[in-house]
Amino acid sequence: MKTKNISLGLIGAGRIGTFHAETIVYRVPNATLVSIADPAEGVAAALAARLGVEKSTSNISTLINDPDLQGVIIASPARFHTDLVIQACEAGKHVFVEKPMALTIENAKRAIDAAENAGVTLQVGFNRRWDQAFAEGRSAIAAGKIGAPQLLRSLTRDPGPFCADPAKIPQWTIFYETLIHDFDTLNWLNNGSKPVEVYATADALVAPEAKSSGYLDTAVVTIKYDNGAIAVAEANFSALYGYDIRGEVFGSEGMVTMGEMARSSMSLYSASGVAQDTLRKDTERFMWPYAAEFQGFVDAIAGERIEAPTGEDAKMALAIALAAIESVKSNAPVSIASVAQT
Amino acid sequence: MKTKNISLGLIGAGRIGTFHAETIVYRVPNATLVSIADPAEGVAAALAARLGVEKSTSNISTLINDPDLQGVIIASPARFHTDLVIQACEAGKHVFVEKPMALTIENAKRAIDAAENAGVTLQVGFNRRWDQAFAEGRSAIAAGKIGAPQLLRSLTRDPGPFCADPAKIPQWTIFYETLIHDFDTLNWLNNGSKPVEVYATADALVAPEAKSSGYLDTAVVTIKYDNGAIAVAEANFSALYGYDIRGEVFGSEGMVTMGEMARSSMSLYSASGVAQDTLRKDTERFMWPYAAEFQGFVDAIAGERIEAPTGEDAKMALAIALAAIESVKSNAPVSIASVAQT
Amino acid sequence: MKTKNISLGLIGAGRIGTFHAETIVYRVPNATLVSIADPAEGVAAALAARLGVEKSTSNISTLINDPDLQGVIIASPARFHTDLVIQACEAGKHVFVEKPMALTIENAKRAIDAAENAGVTLQVGFNRRWDQAFAEGRSAIAAGKIGAPQLLRSLTRDPGPFCADPAKIPQWTIFYETLIHDFDTLNWLNNGSKPVEVYATADALVAPEAKSSGYLDTAVVTIKYDNGAIAVAEANFSALYGYDIRGEVFGSEGMVTMGEMARSSMSLYSASGVAQDTLRKDTERFMWPYAAEFQGFVDAIAGERIEAPTGEDAKMALAIALAAIESVKSNAPVSIASVAQT
Amino acid sequence: MKTKNISLGLIGAGRIGTFHAETIVYRVPNATLVSIADPAEGVAAALAARLGVEKSTSNISTLINDPDLQGVIIASPARFHTDLVIQACEAGKHVFVEKPMALTIENAKRAIDAAENAGVTLQVGFNRRWDQAFAEGRSAIAAGKIGAPQLLRSLTRDPGPFCADPAKIPQWTIFYETLIHDFDTLNWLNNGSKPVEVYATADALVAPEAKSSGYLDTAVVTIKYDNGAIAVAEANFSALYGYDIRGEVFGSEGMVTMGEMARSSMSLYSASGVAQDTLRKDTERFMWPYAAEFQGFVDAIAGERIEAPTGEDAKMALAIALAAIESVKSNAPVSIASVAQT
Repeated sequence: MKTKNISLGLIGAGRIGTFHAETIVYRVPNATLVSIADPAEGVAAALAARLGVEKSTSNISTLINDPDLQGVIIASPARFHTDLVIQACEAGKHVFVEKPMALTIENAKRAIDAAENAGVTLQVGFNRRWDQAFAEGRSAIAAGKIGAPQLLRSLTRDPGPFCADPAKIPQWTIFYETLIHDFDTLNWLNNGSKPVEVYATADALVAPEAKSSGYLDTAVVTIKYDNGAIAVAEANFSALYGYDIRGEVFGSEGMVTMGEMARSSMSLYSASGVAQDTLRKDTERFMWPYAAEFQGFVDAIAGERIEAPTGEDAKMALAIALAAIESVKSNAPVSIASVAQT
Repeated sequence: MKTKNISLGLIGAGRIGTFHAETIVYRVPNATLVSIADPAEGVAAALAARLGVEKSTSNISTLINDPDLQGVIIASPARFHTDLVIQACEAGKHVFVEKPMALTIENAKRAIDAAENAGVTLQVGFNRRWDQAFAEGRSAIAAGKIGAPQLLRSLTRDPGPFCADPAKIPQWTIFYETLIHDFDTLNWLNNGSKPVEVYATADALVAPEAKSSGYLDTAVVTIKYDNGAIAVAEANFSALYGYDIRGEVFGSEGMVTMGEMARSSMSLYSASGVAQDTLRKDTERFMWPYAAEFQGFVDAIAGERIEAPTGEDAKMALAIALAAIESVKSNAPVSIASVAQT
Repeated sequence: MKTKNISLGLIGAGRIGTFHAETIVYRVPNATLVSIADPAEGVAAALAARLGVEKSTSNISTLINDPDLQGVIIASPARFHTDLVIQACEAGKHVFVEKPMALTIENAKRAIDAAENAGVTLQVGFNRRWDQAFAEGRSAIAAGKIGAPQLLRSLTRDPGPFCADPAKIPQWTIFYETLIHDFDTLNWLNNGSKPVEVYATADALVAPEAKSSGYLDTAVVTIKYDNGAIAVAEANFSALYGYDIRGEVFGSEGMVTMGEMARSSMSLYSASGVAQDTLRKDTERFMWPYAAEFQGFVDAIAGERIEAPTGEDAKMALAIALAAIESVKSNAPVSIASVAQT
Repeated sequence: MKTKNISLGLIGAGRIGTFHAETIVYRVPNATLVSIADPAEGVAAALAARLGVEKSTSNISTLINDPDLQGVIIASPARFHTDLVIQACEAGKHVFVEKPMALTIENAKRAIDAAENAGVTLQVGFNRRWDQAFAEGRSAIAAGKIGAPQLLRSLTRDPGPFCADPAKIPQWTIFYETLIHDFDTLNWLNNGSKPVEVYATADALVAPEAKSSGYLDTAVVTIKYDNGAIAVAEANFSALYGYDIRGEVFGSEGMVTMGEMARSSMSLYSASGVAQDTLRKDTERFMWPYAAEFQGFVDAIAGERIEAPTGEDAKMALAIALAAIESVKSNAPVSIASVAQT
């Protein structure tokens, strides 16, 4: 085996943390997952044992201060992200943090500053950027193939049936954790333009009984950009046909579309018509984009110039999320300037 | 030849009026186009001569009062629609009127009342309802195959390059004449639910120099319905790849999508990849839906029960257009109730 | 109505003859179906009454010699085709004959000669040539977009379930009546090249119990052309998913593919995946190609230069059918030269 | 890192051997590539150094007899395959051999016997079986979803432009090395049925100047099976649009199709229509199927029951290749029984 010369630690061994561990161990050459930390007793140890990872701990500071690690991957619950980013930066580690990097603009700035002061890489888990179709679409746009972007669309529909407990989902999750992907995707596809104003409408259509406690599972957000383009981001928590991630950018010279549902090119023709099976899970849909994003992180640590989502990108996506939340509260358009000095 | 037993007259021999005449002559059995009227000297006569239509006139009243006609097709400029509908109803003719049937709710009601009082059929030119894919989508929704609608999308992008003179386009055309199709389509696909509130944003991105005179060519409209569903309608005047008409309805049990751009199933594979040509014109894209809508009109005159867009449907779509216009003016959401007692 | 200035007569009011009558009456401007003949008592009269056709007769000669007719459409059983073509030519009528025009090369030559001597148009019912996708594919090939053709495929799968009585199907029908379409399509797509040698294999897989009486329902035919290209034609009598007509031409610079099964662009996404309904009948799949082929016939009668399948094309397709039949009998490749001096 | 507990050696560091090495090192957990052998001086060493593989040698026997290895991957030129399989089996190693496993039935039997006598796994490199779409198609067939297979198609078109030296391509390569994939695919998809008779036609259409020395680059093969199904396999060495691998199985109840050319779901719409880029290389098209086939090999060594192509499968595919070659020589159908006691 080639020496795996970038040593990584993982904070958080929940569903996605576990998958990130598997991705690094199985699908990222040049990286070694050296340590896993999770405060839940025994969880890190069990995962480390299963994957042959050397160290595990329930003390996150132990991992962050481990001199063997070059980079840290933060997959904790969202509310801890900012502080962990800052601690890791201060310990001199390169940082990969799952979205959202922060829940306030102030915190986003603190994280950005921490990375800058420490001179480390700070990469955010906007996985859609590493999907081949989205990357090809972005390249075509950047190459001018559709002219000036005028209308954009990005959507996230999580696979159903919805079986979470709405009471355990933090308020505004659909903006902070779901649509944050779409907000970043739109900013990125719109080729350097900045969001100006946001109008959002949201509802609890999947689990209407939970609406009174502030829970929302369906949202549509309109975003005006400083190049005149108008974007729509849309999310829902329960698509029975699978995990639906699509993007579309229409411009003065043409259009790109990205995303499809078919699981493979196999089509079955029968007396009832033609059918294809669909992609059902994020870990199936994004298996290789996840590998690519960690490969990018590892390559960046190794000194290569990688185009990856940064702390600034996270702050810009957050600004849209905050404006969308204000818009839902006020049922009025909200300017980005009013929620963030960006 | 079978006796063509429904006699029709056409008012307006402009671009779409001419195409409607061809459609009736060439593609609608059981109908005979007996007369054409157009105030522009010689225009009706020339078209009648070309298509073998018996009568022509530059006096519209002459046509409306022609006792030989059972039905009248109104394809004049939009601002004359209502009055012509009323005159034709009062003359006892069945009426097909191009969209928009009216530009005010008051006028919409007048047209509806006129048809009701005269006991004639009043059908509105929402051609998308007659497209096979949209009709199949609507049937699937009505049959419950996608559960309760939650998120809808309808878009119209006219084929580019845009080569009209913006100064000749009446203000708010994108809402009154373009998006009116999408508003009706969304109302129809949303299976009986009623629009409640509208937020619209619009801009002149195709011809920005004309914006100062109130011209708009790009718009995004968010509509909330009384079943909780949220719809987005979107339009642009210049799609370089052709005439782009699509619809999507997402519900609690699934999704339907309608519309595609490929002109045929022919794909060309070459060193540069795989390519298909696209549909370029409304008259190509909707050749057979246009024939179907007039067949429906003729069948209705002949006494069959036909599901076709009515004056009430036109009024409901207009209400959304009016709310959208108010929303653009105020940059705020506007309730349907504030523009229409529907 | 425009004067319908080409007067046509129809021989044969069976399934496809009836559909041809409807096509001419409803979907072909400039043509008037003036007379229908069918030897079965009352059949022509009933169809004529339903469609408003002026004359009907059970005497085919009456129709052929009717001085009111400019063109005759022959949709009788295949074994009568040649004699009817010759009679109609001798009566000075332009002739459209359903495939196969003849069942022997000798007869094909007699039909060609009769038309030539009479100076009339002789068009054969190879409807696939009038399908938009196939026509676009042929144009791309003729324009050199795929370079020199090297591998071709054409297939016909009739919609199932098969419910005919095998005993009533003449022997070799799969070659004479089904694959004859594919043979012509391949000759036409291969851009002027000539077939040289044929190998065919066939079986009764749909109704195996009928095989002992010579019935065949499944066949694969390999054809070598004088430009080196190798073609495969394939047929089956029972496709449960519908009427499957496809073509593919691979060349030195690329490939064209034609044909698809989806009935419309409507896709239904549900818990079981994504599905589309399929085209089920030839009259649905080829409704407009049928209209186009008769429009072409009418235009040719009116004096326009139309590219349409000729008697020579029918003879060439027949030569392949005959060679294929010989090949099945001998289980060996058979040269075109051995069955036809073409 | 998880202990990589299956130790593998690789024989042959040419184009595909190098890619196999990368696949094992980068994309197959649980496997360690311990040694590489290639007779060309320095080649194995360079690859081993680049990938961090422990050992390298120019002596193939050294590798085969290395007690550290559990399995050996044979990616040498085809003519050495059989002897290397036998040596590796005799050394007690599990064997993965690239196709073709043997060039004669006698040799195929020797290889099969060697593995049986040694009690080791013998897996053959039919990568198409590990492609998700083909595997799904095969599952649907095995589950009876298309009824009894009646017509099959499998094709291989290598990406062009062709830039090899025809003189360096061994005679009959298109059958032994290219179509062997399709022969195995058809046997496998046809669900346990056995080939009975073969008719093949082939030509040099890509490099016609080399035909006189026996070089062939285009072939079509018809195969009759003992369940009555008729299959067509087709190959060409130069598809300018990329690497084209497709399969189709039509049966009494329906059809499955597998394979597509689009590189991703990104579509670009522009004034010239809609376009997608295509897959260009086997290593791009089959990156993950290659990983899956080695994962299967490793899992089999680890004791799991894996459905993988065996020596018997290789012998059956070879029998078709041999019959096809005889058929080209004789221009007549050739029975499988005449080339192989299978």
